[in-house]
Amino acid sequence: MPAKLYDLELSGNCYKVRLLCALLGVPLEIIPVDFLAGAHKRPPVIDLNPFGELPVFQDGDVVLRDSQAILVYVARKWGGEAWLPTDPADMARVCEWLFVAENEIARGPNDARLHDKFGYTLDVATARANAARILGLMERRLARRSWLALDRPTVADIACMPYVALGHEGGVPIDGYPALQAWVQRVKQLPGFVGMPAI
Amino acid sequence: MPAKLYDLELSGNCYKVRLLCALLGVPLEIIPVDFLAGAHKRPPVIDLNPFGELPVFQDGDVVLRDSQAILVYVARKWGGEAWLPTDPADMARVCEWLFVAENEIARGPNDARLHDKFGYTLDVATARANAARILGLMERRLARRSWLALDRPTVADIACMPYVALGHEGGVPIDGYPALQAWVQRVKQLPGFVGMPAI
Repeated sequence: MPAKLYDLELSGNCYKVRLLCALLGVPLEIIPVDFLAGAHKRPPVIDLNPFGELPVFQDGDVVLRDSQAILVYVARKWGGEAWLPTDPADMARVCEWLFVAENEIARGPNDARLHDKFGYTLDVATARANAARILGLMERRLARRSWLALDRPTVADIACMPYVALGHEGGVPIDGYPALQAWVQRVKQLPGFVGMPAI
Repeated sequence: MPAKLYDLELSGNCYKVRLLCALLGVPLEIIPVDFLAGAHKRPPVIDLNPFGELPVFQDGDVVLRDSQAILVYVARKWGGEAWLPTDPADMARVCEWLFVAENEIARGPNDARLHDKFGYTLDVATARANAARILGLMERRLARRSWLALDRPTVADIACMPYVALGHEGGVPIDGYPALQAWVQRVKQLPGFVGMPAI
């Protein structure tokens, strides 16, 4: 039985999981959830994830919420030491960027896109300011290295790329960030890469 | 040479690191940073952490930012399988709550405290609404279990407890949440526990 992903095609958070599984050759059963109808707030999805959010991941009796936590699981179960190593320093270096995806990128380019594309009520000026800050920090880092955390692609890159690459849907395009653009291209060239609408 | 923590005593994020190190018996050299004077935005701290935030952790040539990432490092290096296990499902279950600390708790009780206690300009009504949501979710979970992620204390509990216990400093006390109160007490009874002002 393949693992199940309760999925929304236009969600960058769901896409992260689809992307890592594609890169690792992990088969997934995609279960589309009618987000606009609020199906994620009702059974059976709410019973799997009381937070009422997507994605939700189910592998046998393992049920997980939060896209970054799902990446941790997929990487540890099917990725060996490549995508999330167990060495303390390397694991922490990768996790630093999982937390950036969860915090600075979520409150930056992701929020800006939720406002512009999906009509969420939120302070879009703050979201755009947050986006400018984190995109600048990432640009300076990627100007002198190929991948965010280690000398190879890891779940750090998979977690952070989608909403950066989708920034143009939230009024925060990466046109002025050459290192970010080159990094997105490097991710796109990974063997097994799959895209999503607007990436 | 003990590891160094660039520290602010009143920061719940710095406290998490001090607490886990105390529980594990890991010696720390505490380097107080003059936060009110903006020392975290200037060398030498900004050179260690370009995000210009505290805590920053230095263990030999390993330099880490983000309190949750530092917990990952400390737990993996000195905690064996106890505080952050490497089994894929258990690691992901613990990480789910590290991401809650980084996201829902940061944008809830932590933001509310930053507004009330430190005068940050932010939308405190949104912070209090976020706090009510995540405190309710945690209360329902902890009503039927002792610890957030596994059947024992893990870094999930260490990451999530401080700003929940400090909620009263941001107008979101946990008086009405008996399971949260009992959980905070369980953390306080762990051997080696240390407190911070207001906890």
